[in-house]
Amino acid sequence: MERQRHQGMAKNTSMRWRLPLVCLLWELAMIVLFGVFVRFSPEADAHWEEEKRELNLTSDIENDFYFRYPSFQDVHVMIFVGFGFLMTFLKRYGFGAVGFNFLLAAFGIQWALLMQGWFHSFKNGKILIGVENLINADFCVGSVCIAFGAILGKTSPIQLLVLTLFQVTLFSVNEYILLNLLHVKDAGGSMTIHTFGAYFGLTVTRILYRPNLEQSKDKQASVYHSDLFAMIGTLYLWMYWPSFNSAISDHGDAQHRAAINTYCSLAACVLSTMAFSSMLQKKGKLDMVHIQNATLAGGVAVGTSAEMMLTPYGSLIVGFLSGIVSTVGYVYLTPFLESRLHIQDTCGIHNLHAMPGLIGGIVGAITAAAATEDVYGKEGFIKAFDFTGVYRARTPSVQGGFQAAGIMVSLLMAFVGGALVGAILKLPVWGDAAAENCFEDDVYWEVPEDEESDAYHMHSPDKPASP
Amino acid sequence: MERQRHQGMAKNTSMRWRLPLVCLLWELAMIVLFGVFVRFSPEADAHWEEEKRELNLTSDIENDFYFRYPSFQDVHVMIFVGFGFLMTFLKRYGFGAVGFNFLLAAFGIQWALLMQGWFHSFKNGKILIGVENLINADFCVGSVCIAFGAILGKTSPIQLLVLTLFQVTLFSVNEYILLNLLHVKDAGGSMTIHTFGAYFGLTVTRILYRPNLEQSKDKQASVYHSDLFAMIGTLYLWMYWPSFNSAISDHGDAQHRAAINTYCSLAACVLSTMAFSSMLQKKGKLDMVHIQNATLAGGVAVGTSAEMMLTPYGSLIVGFLSGIVSTVGYVYLTPFLESRLHIQDTCGIHNLHAMPGLIGGIVGAITAAAATEDVYGKEGFIKAFDFTGVYRARTPSVQGGFQAAGIMVSLLMAFVGGALVGAILKLPVWGDAAAENCFEDDVYWEVPEDEESDAYHMHSPDKPASP
Amino acid sequence: MERQRHQGMAKNTSMRWRLPLVCLLWELAMIVLFGVFVRFSPEADAHWEEEKRELNLTSDIENDFYFRYPSFQDVHVMIFVGFGFLMTFLKRYGFGAVGFNFLLAAFGIQWALLMQGWFHSFKNGKILIGVENLINADFCVGSVCIAFGAILGKTSPIQLLVLTLFQVTLFSVNEYILLNLLHVKDAGGSMTIHTFGAYFGLTVTRILYRPNLEQSKDKQASVYHSDLFAMIGTLYLWMYWPSFNSAISDHGDAQHRAAINTYCSLAACVLSTMAFSSMLQKKGKLDMVHIQNATLAGGVAVGTSAEMMLTPYGSLIVGFLSGIVSTVGYVYLTPFLESRLHIQDTCGIHNLHAMPGLIGGIVGAITAAAATEDVYGKEGFIKAFDFTGVYRARTPSVQGGFQAAGIMVSLLMAFVGGALVGAILKLPVWGDAAAENCFEDDVYWEVPEDEESDAYHMHSPDKPASP
Repeated sequence: MERQRHQGMAKNTSMRWRLPLVCLLWELAMIVLFGVFVRFSPEADAHWEEEKRELNLTSDIENDFYFRYPSFQDVHVMIFVGFGFLMTFLKRYGFGAVGFNFLLAAFGIQWALLMQGWFHSFKNGKILIGVENLINADFCVGSVCIAFGAILGKTSPIQLLVLTLFQVTLFSVNEYILLNLLHVKDAGGSMTIHTFGAYFGLTVTRILYRPNLEQSKDKQASVYHSDLFAMIGTLYLWMYWPSFNSAISDHGDAQHRAAINTYCSLAACVLSTMAFSSMLQKKGKLDMVHIQNATLAGGVAVGTSAEMMLTPYGSLIVGFLSGIVSTVGYVYLTPFLESRLHIQDTCGIHNLHAMPGLIGGIVGAITAAAATEDVYGKEGFIKAFDFTGVYRARTPSVQGGFQAAGIMVSLLMAFVGGALVGAILKLPVWGDAAAENCFEDDVYWEVPEDEESDAYHMHSPDKPASP
Repeated sequence: MERQRHQGMAKNTSMRWRLPLVCLLWELAMIVLFGVFVRFSPEADAHWEEEKRELNLTSDIENDFYFRYPSFQDVHVMIFVGFGFLMTFLKRYGFGAVGFNFLLAAFGIQWALLMQGWFHSFKNGKILIGVENLINADFCVGSVCIAFGAILGKTSPIQLLVLTLFQVTLFSVNEYILLNLLHVKDAGGSMTIHTFGAYFGLTVTRILYRPNLEQSKDKQASVYHSDLFAMIGTLYLWMYWPSFNSAISDHGDAQHRAAINTYCSLAACVLSTMAFSSMLQKKGKLDMVHIQNATLAGGVAVGTSAEMMLTPYGSLIVGFLSGIVSTVGYVYLTPFLESRLHIQDTCGIHNLHAMPGLIGGIVGAITAAAATEDVYGKEGFIKAFDFTGVYRARTPSVQGGFQAAGIMVSLLMAFVGGALVGAILKLPVWGDAAAENCFEDDVYWEVPEDEESDAYHMHSPDKPASP
Repeated sequence: MERQRHQGMAKNTSMRWRLPLVCLLWELAMIVLFGVFVRFSPEADAHWEEEKRELNLTSDIENDFYFRYPSFQDVHVMIFVGFGFLMTFLKRYGFGAVGFNFLLAAFGIQWALLMQGWFHSFKNGKILIGVENLINADFCVGSVCIAFGAILGKTSPIQLLVLTLFQVTLFSVNEYILLNLLHVKDAGGSMTIHTFGAYFGLTVTRILYRPNLEQSKDKQASVYHSDLFAMIGTLYLWMYWPSFNSAISDHGDAQHRAAINTYCSLAACVLSTMAFSSMLQKKGKLDMVHIQNATLAGGVAVGTSAEMMLTPYGSLIVGFLSGIVSTVGYVYLTPFLESRLHIQDTCGIHNLHAMPGLIGGIVGAITAAAATEDVYGKEGFIKAFDFTGVYRARTPSVQGGFQAAGIMVSLLMAFVGGALVGAILKLPVWGDAAAENCFEDDVYWEVPEDEESDAYHMHSPDKPASP
């Protein structure tokens, strides 16, 4: 094809040796590292019968597997189908959206099991993994999927793998600082996943700024059916978000409460999104971009506080406001960021994850600062914030302060880390496509010839082939 | 575009101020009402540690969350992806199907939490919500999604919100009469959800009769890929129906049994649907409309009796018959209802929900009337029908009579309520589209220009643009 | 239409009386057999209160329903959406893929409940079913879905029902030999489901060899959106495979471990698949066929050993290798099998199920043979391999030998059974399509006229209509 030759001249996007080399070497490294470090946690080990006796457990149902496995599967669907299909809205980048998301997440969860394992599950020289580790690995990769949203269509699969390697590493360090050093609560990851992931991705895409991107502007749009595919992603994220925010909360009331708060927040968010989507368009028509994205802001914005006593009406308020902020962001902020700050944010993650993530961090800090023994009960208060051991004397207002510090640390890690990783990805060795070939699957994928496009060809032989 | 201007002259469908106003005001009302009334149930409240001690529970796994949360998530998928995608079969109404379903359900679950809460979870001036309330709210909204099926493509989003407001209210009243006053069993909602929802929707669509609807007949059809999108909805409804019918049954054997009965009924229903779909078409070809819809009738028809000792073969019989009734309904009854009774039923909810719902109510009444202590065991008998307190002396045959009365009450509520709500929706202020613009997304949505249609334009400039 | 008349002359594909007759008679047979044999297991029966007291259970949460129902629902999704949508990759066979898979699976699970029930759950003349039976029925049907992949697009729905009847029967016999007579472990079914199902299907398609199949070669390809539909199937299979391999493992650590091993294996498999897909294509582009299929080989290949102490790094190795084997199979082996051995394998099940299934059986045998009391703990060792009763004295190496024998038996059953069933399906009474009408939905389905194809028609009236 004419275009392909042209593109060949402009940039060498062939992955033939580079991609296999990276995939195979890195996977071999995973195998070696897993061999040295990773073993089963007691609840997944065949010695469990003895463990059960020691812990005086009377039933197999007390295995953590039964507390968390259903939530794990929901989170798993969010990462692979949710994020994957959400990004299929582009007319000719569906393979890249679903396929590269699949690739980076499959690598990322392995590396996250190691990184998070070293920080949190390391005993006698071994990382002991159970279902909670799987959830956390999926969470960590979620932040990479978010960053992917900013650079969607503009990077090679190798760049995405490099991004994943570094981002998972930085995520784990940041998470360790927040959860262990600052003793911050962040069950649904408003700070660790969304704020960090989004600002990291935005910094990377700023560094990778492409001045001539308008050359592929016609491809940076949806077609009718691609918008429906994207709605599959939207709905699975929306429906399973209660599982996301409750998956690693304490057993019992905390998981239960986190699910309810998230359910409420998301419901309110849909209403305010629809309202502003219609209001901000001069003919009053709804815009699929908003419905696909801003409806989810409510889940992001209760991430930190969902397991706290936010209360259902508090959740409605948070969801309501975040839907407005997110939709307004899509209409006014995204064009501004692109034209003035040169931040080309393909999926608008600034509106869906960055701002709602900040809201989530702030709401979490306020909710923590406002906690009282009256509201939580004496035992519930200690359990909810884990005010035991060295943190026995911490007060709610101090906790609120540390929560706020957690936001700052996450932002700092995102900006510095994103700048470094962006610089690495700018090196001219990763095989990214020329500006006029962005948002186009046939750079990296075998793409079938569609009948419709044949029809197109047939009758306009003088025009360039469109897909 | 030519058409749009024309449509603008015919009817003012602009939502710019009306839709935002309704969404924002109603959501603010929700926030206020939730603030006044809604709190966490003891199992989701941070005082749970104390509650556990009081109830003498030894483990967090006894929290209702672990009994019902997996079923809740399945039901949640059925409401948003199941109903949403089932209705994407129309060639140019996919955005409206998925998007408006999303909107009405997100509003409806909030209002249902309140309405059902006042009736069933009201203690000391507060509604205390837990996972069972979330399931019941989703159930209630399910009946609105059913009614939406009848008027799909012919109403504005504001009309759908008004419909939701009233239908959720009436649903809750009807449910209260059935469950509390008549002491009727209806775990899967054959009567409360399907019979009520379907006849309510059919009455509404009758009142909203559009004599000139054949002007948009060409759009009231599917294309190849829209039929595949609809199959996503069908399959998720079909697969998760066992969770639907068992979600709020008693812990233990009742949930287990309800899932098995539903599984069996649905399997049989597929076979009889395929048989009649092929038999009733002169070339013997299968019709996607039947496969997408009638295969689900088996789930509807065991809704009431699934938690009873219906037995697996009883379930097969119910599923088998309801598949036949539903398919025959699509072939013969739907055209008749439209031409003679002026009931324009876009999705054929009469065949999928109304008739199978009636079957479900009747089967439930018979199964209840036939119950014996021998079959259920002494304790099981009392537990299954909750024959305690004032109902201690109720016999199976009396229970059967009350079950039958429940059907009648549901029908009455549906007809009267549907007539009233239909009359309200007929007011000329809601911004519904003209007959020639029905089943067309671009009335209320920003619709991308598809390449295919560009091709179409290019070569037939004298014909009107198709999408 | 021209073509249809032509096809009518070539072969009588009308299903009008044949399909309804088979569906209705067989379903009636199911009803009678269920009536005679099938009842609820004690955990789903209303006598459960008494059962609980007898077994000294203190809580309803001890009901097997709560241990397995979430996994059951995931498996259910894999069978109906996973397999169904995986096969929608063909441009004009989406209805057949999803619809016939739906039909055969709905019939198959009923027949499997009976067949497996007679072998495993038969007490006092009754088959007592609970959630584990539902999972096993789905598993059994999974092997039929696999075989369907080989003959996709080339058989009539009646042939598929006949295939299902026989394959479910043979599956149950083979499963009985392996699990009961040889006392083999095969939780995820590498041998019973994948090896048996795939070689059975390959034998059937060999017998049904169509020498003129290249007449429909243009239809044996995907279009852009059909590849995205197929990815829905792929991802659901991939995400839920941990549930598949752990669904019927022992309560507690075994289920937990099986999920972790499968998660690891699948993650590694994605990396090696992507590497080889790119490497084996001369321009280095990724091939959707590989991403859709070979990424799943890791789940197949840990089927037998997932519940054993395979360890996470062992799982990575298995997944890594099976991804390579599977991808290489798609590139080199499938064309060879077709041209030399006349095995026309539409979906490439030899690469996705047959070879990885064999790997799974072998890995299972080795892992079993290598088991020690040290690794499993004394109790864990006995529990993991069920070395009780007459098997008390069996050693790991003997177990390994029996595992290997299980592979051989499965292969033998597949080849002999496949040959017999293939011969039956070759009879000219089942209404299969002529070679030039393979992979074409409109032989058995009412297919909507797409606008795109209208456009196509309009401008090339001299060319045959394409869809």
